[in-house]
Amino acid sequence: MTIMVLELAAPKGSDITSLVPLLPKFLTYALSFLLLAIYWVNHHHLFQAVERVNGAVLWANVGLLFWLSLIPFVTAWAGDNAAKPVPVAIYGTILVLAAIAYFILVQTLLALHPSGSSLASAIGRDVKGKLSLLIYALAILASFFSTLVGWSLYIAVALIWLVPDRRIENTIGS
Amino acid sequence: MTIMVLELAAPKGSDITSLVPLLPKFLTYALSFLLLAIYWVNHHHLFQAVERVNGAVLWANVGLLFWLSLIPFVTAWAGDNAAKPVPVAIYGTILVLAAIAYFILVQTLLALHPSGSSLASAIGRDVKGKLSLLIYALAILASFFSTLVGWSLYIAVALIWLVPDRRIENTIGS
Amino acid sequence: MTIMVLELAAPKGSDITSLVPLLPKFLTYALSFLLLAIYWVNHHHLFQAVERVNGAVLWANVGLLFWLSLIPFVTAWAGDNAAKPVPVAIYGTILVLAAIAYFILVQTLLALHPSGSSLASAIGRDVKGKLSLLIYALAILASFFSTLVGWSLYIAVALIWLVPDRRIENTIGS
Amino acid sequence: MTIMVLELAAPKGSDITSLVPLLPKFLTYALSFLLLAIYWVNHHHLFQAVERVNGAVLWANVGLLFWLSLIPFVTAWAGDNAAKPVPVAIYGTILVLAAIAYFILVQTLLALHPSGSSLASAIGRDVKGKLSLLIYALAILASFFSTLVGWSLYIAVALIWLVPDRRIENTIGS
Repeated sequence: MTIMVLELAAPKGSDITSLVPLLPKFLTYALSFLLLAIYWVNHHHLFQAVERVNGAVLWANVGLLFWLSLIPFVTAWAGDNAAKPVPVAIYGTILVLAAIAYFILVQTLLALHPSGSSLASAIGRDVKGKLSLLIYALAILASFFSTLVGWSLYIAVALIWLVPDRRIENTIGS
Repeated sequence: MTIMVLELAAPKGSDITSLVPLLPKFLTYALSFLLLAIYWVNHHHLFQAVERVNGAVLWANVGLLFWLSLIPFVTAWAGDNAAKPVPVAIYGTILVLAAIAYFILVQTLLALHPSGSSLASAIGRDVKGKLSLLIYALAILASFFSTLVGWSLYIAVALIWLVPDRRIENTIGS
Repeated sequence: MTIMVLELAAPKGSDITSLVPLLPKFLTYALSFLLLAIYWVNHHHLFQAVERVNGAVLWANVGLLFWLSLIPFVTAWAGDNAAKPVPVAIYGTILVLAAIAYFILVQTLLALHPSGSSLASAIGRDVKGKLSLLIYALAILASFFSTLVGWSLYIAVALIWLVPDRRIENTIGS
Repeated sequence: MTIMVLELAAPKGSDITSLVPLLPKFLTYALSFLLLAIYWVNHHHLFQAVERVNGAVLWANVGLLFWLSLIPFVTAWAGDNAAKPVPVAIYGTILVLAAIAYFILVQTLLALHPSGSSLASAIGRDVKGKLSLLIYALAILASFFSTLVGWSLYIAVALIWLVPDRRIENTIGS
């Protein structure tokens, strides 16, 4: 249906210095790619354990896709204005809204699956999910004092999810 | 094959006021996203109950995709001109044509499935589908007097479909 | 992998006359959409009867996708220059190359399937495929004398494929 | 999730000479399309023999997609500057990084499959993969002396992979 197209425009010049002003755009692109990939891996992992869906799950999924579909927009804006508080904070706001949408999706799925199901045990206490929300909120506030701290906190969330997650290993692969 | 790419361009400025002129574009984007999501959910729901297809079904499906593929075009135009009658009416015209295409798709499927089939019972009397067509027609007319009434009626159609639909719950999930 | 994104840009103005110069672009868009849809339906139909593939089939498929991937480019160019011979002839040239690629794909598949297979009988003598190639070649030549004749012949090919095809009905659906 | 959209913009003029300046862009587009297709065919081939995945495989896959997602960017830049050393070398750098990512993906899969598995035998000694890396490295160096030699070496890599590969024939098809 609707897809996310992250884009980098080619620079005007043809020497290595023409790439330098692209650096903040490239780093923002890479961060957004990583955050979208984390959603893709987690979403894939989540739905492998799903046994049944209903209308609430479908609409929660649409809600998640809506906020994720705005990531290219805020990536382009914050990439152009990597040292300006408002675009960096708005970038984080979309990340928070996507994280809340993912949390709601998880809740609609938990409501349909018994507490002993493989879905329930795969989700567990969802420490990473709750921690991510907290860090995003801090990052938004921090952006108004230092965009560097804001960006660092967004990167911290990505790193939390990159740490090998024993739950994924156990569920897939067997 | 062909896909729909809804896009929002990043604003030039970097403060919060530079987002204000984007507001009508964002709201139009959100409405189009929701209307496309409704088609996606309904289409998914419909084809879960399908037992057989023929050439007529495939071409009716292509017809639906054609009108849906124009939604990004009218979203961009009406989003730039949210208070101008013609773009708002053309936006609704594409919605009407997509709704008629969906109606034709449903009819080609009903022609292939007996009246007691799960498809036939899943479609039922299709009250929402017929009501949507009526409201879209009213919205197009209303746009020439007040674009606000036009937009409100488009939103009303989306809300009709967001109301939990017992048929979906019963068919999927079991 | 690579996808075809047909696009229509929103006009600058906001009244009905601002849509008039878009008309040739819109008609070209609709024709390209239809021709791509015909490939999609035929491709889908073809691969439903496929029992085995090899490297030659995969590469023939890549060749078809390459020429189809250029359709948005020639659609944009010919849509902007609908009365100019060269763009209209180049549009047809890409269609011819795609049709030849499809013919090669069919041949690689026939080489892998015995003459009594459901694939072989689904393809039959491929009259429409050979007729399309002939009409495209005529259309390219005609474009240099009258672009209107060129366009009419491209539309004629689309109509040939829209005529209900008994083979599709028989193969799918049962 | 994120997809690669290779694009060619329509030229301004409408005669055949207006296509001439597009030639380097078109050839770069065709080369990138071919290189992406090789990844797609190899990836498809690889995952047909996969019996189990884990988190490392998923993340290695994301790494590959990241570098492939930058191919449209370097294709546009090198296509605009086909005779300039830096863009041609950067084009090759992304190809090297994608090739390394593919190598890592293969290693994560080999770690999960016994040496006698169909995956291990399908990969074999991966002579083409290692040769490609070497040629890409040479091409990057060569670009600073002659971009023509650089381009020729990139094309050489594509040709290596187009030569019918007995392993693919044996694994698929049976």
